Amino acid sequence: MNAIHYSAAELAARFGLDVRGDGARMVSGVGTLGGAGASELSFLSNSKYTAQLLSTRAGVVVLREENLADCPATALIARDPYVAYARIAALFERLPAAPAGVHPSAVVAASARVSAGASIGPCCVIEADAVVEDGAVLGPHCIIGEGCTVGAQSRLVARVTLVTRVILGRRVLVHPGAVIGSDGFGLAFDTDHWIKLPQLGGVRIGDDCEIGANTTIDRGTLDDTVLEEDVRLDNQIQIAHNVHVGAHTAMAGCAAVAGSARIGRYCQIGGNAGVLGHLELADRVTITAKSLVTHSIREPGEYSSGVPLQENRLWRRNAARFKHLDEYARRLAALEKDKSND
Amino acid sequence: MNAIHYSAAELAARFGLDVRGDGARMVSGVGTLGGAGASELSFLSNSKYTAQLLSTRAGVVVLREENLADCPATALIARDPYVAYARIAALFERLPAAPAGVHPSAVVAASARVSAGASIGPCCVIEADAVVEDGAVLGPHCIIGEGCTVGAQSRLVARVTLVTRVILGRRVLVHPGAVIGSDGFGLAFDTDHWIKLPQLGGVRIGDDCEIGANTTIDRGTLDDTVLEEDVRLDNQIQIAHNVHVGAHTAMAGCAAVAGSARIGRYCQIGGNAGVLGHLELADRVTITAKSLVTHSIREPGEYSSGVPLQENRLWRRNAARFKHLDEYARRLAALEKDKSND
Amino acid sequence: MNAIHYSAAELAARFGLDVRGDGARMVSGVGTLGGAGASELSFLSNSKYTAQLLSTRAGVVVLREENLADCPATALIARDPYVAYARIAALFERLPAAPAGVHPSAVVAASARVSAGASIGPCCVIEADAVVEDGAVLGPHCIIGEGCTVGAQSRLVARVTLVTRVILGRRVLVHPGAVIGSDGFGLAFDTDHWIKLPQLGGVRIGDDCEIGANTTIDRGTLDDTVLEEDVRLDNQIQIAHNVHVGAHTAMAGCAAVAGSARIGRYCQIGGNAGVLGHLELADRVTITAKSLVTHSIREPGEYSSGVPLQENRLWRRNAARFKHLDEYARRLAALEKDKSND
Repeated sequence: MNAIHYSAAELAARFGLDVRGDGARMVSGVGTLGGAGASELSFLSNSKYTAQLLSTRAGVVVLREENLADCPATALIARDPYVAYARIAALFERLPAAPAGVHPSAVVAASARVSAGASIGPCCVIEADAVVEDGAVLGPHCIIGEGCTVGAQSRLVARVTLVTRVILGRRVLVHPGAVIGSDGFGLAFDTDHWIKLPQLGGVRIGDDCEIGANTTIDRGTLDDTVLEEDVRLDNQIQIAHNVHVGAHTAMAGCAAVAGSARIGRYCQIGGNAGVLGHLELADRVTITAKSLVTHSIREPGEYSSGVPLQENRLWRRNAARFKHLDEYARRLAALEKDKSND
Repeated sequence: MNAIHYSAAELAARFGLDVRGDGARMVSGVGTLGGAGASELSFLSNSKYTAQLLSTRAGVVVLREENLADCPATALIARDPYVAYARIAALFERLPAAPAGVHPSAVVAASARVSAGASIGPCCVIEADAVVEDGAVLGPHCIIGEGCTVGAQSRLVARVTLVTRVILGRRVLVHPGAVIGSDGFGLAFDTDHWIKLPQLGGVRIGDDCEIGANTTIDRGTLDDTVLEEDVRLDNQIQIAHNVHVGAHTAMAGCAAVAGSARIGRYCQIGGNAGVLGHLELADRVTITAKSLVTHSIREPGEYSSGVPLQENRLWRRNAARFKHLDEYARRLAALEKDKSND
Repeated sequence: MNAIHYSAAELAARFGLDVRGDGARMVSGVGTLGGAGASELSFLSNSKYTAQLLSTRAGVVVLREENLADCPATALIARDPYVAYARIAALFERLPAAPAGVHPSAVVAASARVSAGASIGPCCVIEADAVVEDGAVLGPHCIIGEGCTVGAQSRLVARVTLVTRVILGRRVLVHPGAVIGSDGFGLAFDTDHWIKLPQLGGVRIGDDCEIGANTTIDRGTLDDTVLEEDVRLDNQIQIAHNVHVGAHTAMAGCAAVAGSARIGRYCQIGGNAGVLGHLELADRVTITAKSLVTHSIREPGEYSSGVPLQENRLWRRNAARFKHLDEYARRLAALEKDKSND
């Protein structure tokens, strides 16, 4: 089905790699060291998998010079084999056809501007004053709300909703079920009930961002919620109103950032980690999975909270003691004081 | 684009505020103290932002009498400036047009009853015996399942799914991606495999509730899952079957409540907090972010779990010690006993 | 409305139960012990609800022989009353009508193969080379991506998206908002920006699985993400690329499993629990709610992490001490050493 193929030498030339062995070896796909066959390419990035390299049946392997001796196949030498592999693998990705034009089942407002070079899939709804730029691809069931913009070459895989005042940059990739530009959660308590603060801001998403499936990004209360360029969000992430995320920051699945927090550039937020509202994180801060950030972080580095997993029977005993930790600390200090008074 | 405008004196009269300074000052929008211009209104609710008040260029500011001396603009005096501001800001919110009637691309079952004053957007699907009351607005791609009711003046922003036996009250606001009335997670283990318990109940949502983007609310097993009036749910919240949430309770993003839990009135559940099944929370209980409620709470107040964030290197040492906390407590007690025997 | 009814004796015969009392008693529905009326059936599975049995007005109760003396109604004796009840209750579930055929508003690619016995609801989109087998039911707004298969008798309630290379087995039940086959979160860091790893694998879902509302399951990077048969996932669960979940495992709402983790058979993962990537969990492992699994688990059993909920004022004191736990342990050891040197 997949008729794409390249020789090892062609790949080396294209990506600036050195070829060792049979440069004429043809590659028609990629695979793991354990699973790839003679017409496939694999890679070794982490030396702990060297045993798999020794026994691989892959026709071509991308690796570092230092692992060359263990390679039974044609080798492509890369400084960073994982990056080189990612570029090569992209050649073998086959995206669904997305012909330019508007599917007859789509509903496009008269005042919307859809580039002739954009592809609008079945049942899409494009509302008043929305803009879809050249080369943008909207899969089925996308909703582009009033006044939103989808930048050139962006791809909304399917069933993406931009609510209102959302600007997507160029080459933004959004996965199904994502909701961008929904109301921020702004409430004022009036004596005995809540009243809603209108959410009058928008959302700006920089070039080359990626937004995961069922992720939600609320629009700002007055100013905008902002993702700078190349921000990478996994699935089911929640970004509250007025959050600002610096360029090249990545967040793993189910992370959540509360209102008006400001995350630096090149940060990495682990799975299901949380950041409280109105905090600031410096550039290059890493938060490990399921940690909760409760104060601003001024220095780059790795930060964590939580306690380790144990067998439930043991954990129960330790967890029960946690409720008395302050008391224990005082008793310990008292003993020390007694000791020093001896 | 926005031709709405009011004088300061008009706003004062409308919301029962006192005006100080130029009552003829015209307001055509709202903004932050730092961002608002001469034709915009801002507010000061928290005195720690007084420095911003001093330098604001806003034409009108809503504030408490006590901050009047620091105000360089026309002032509107309010007992609660945040509440007054919320009411004023709502005047400047421009919702998408929602003309009464059914969009031609919508699919409406013959037995459904849709009020002539309701607005049904593109690609909506309204199934058998469903009811949409007067003034209700369904944005694009909403699905109203068999026998569900959307109360008068409710607004389903876009792509909301009511599965079955869901009754929404009046003025309910539901954001995109929300799923209400999905099957509760009910399973019985039969020797070596699961069998499903049919979920025969429904969901009842009170007047003035708000349901966030991609939030899920399961229907009850036999009785209904219930949200009383004015419950406010942020994005990505999970409410399991047979949960009962008291009036005026608010939950922040990614909170989750397990089956048959009963949450009181005026509770506040923090972001990503969890409540185990079959528990009861009294009225006016606050749970801080990411805490897990593992027992019923009988007294109002604020409750928490979790440990603080630290630099990973330090956190690792402390976390490793947690596994021995019970042992440390015993050793501490032994030392104390030795001491008292001295 | 519901004209379905059975006599107690008919139910006993159908499900292999013993009837005690009036076998002619007619049952037209099910209910709780507290809520069921004379024409309804209830059950007692947990003896702690015996008081409710004594006062029930249910016409028929399913229970264990040992509870028979306390039963004021016709009894059906079962070894496992909960399982027997689940089977009986299923008789009274009334699913929406799903006539075979394709709704005129659906968009079906020419190369897709849809069985004549399948039901395709309004606004569904079925893309190139997709397959929908006999007896499958697609509610409104489902998207079946290129090359995906929906197995026989599977039911996609509404608004389910299968992105690409997804194979659903037979009798799979998927709830609204679920996204299956979205891109795994694979990135390589290239000097100063991210590059994306194409996600070339698929997803395989075994027979009799259930996937909750707004749950996301990413497709594999090279190999497939796999759920074996009878896996039960609640709402808002995140399954990352290349995860393998063993048969009969159940996960509660908001659980998350990171890339390439391998979960055994008959595991139970609690609500909002997390499993880090590349770990293995043996068969019959239970993880309690909100725990984080940070290492592989080789032995069946129950595992936990976290600390108990306390009133915030007390919790703050204990939590602050956690940051010094390593120091306390050292000071305790020092005191003990002093003691032994006395």
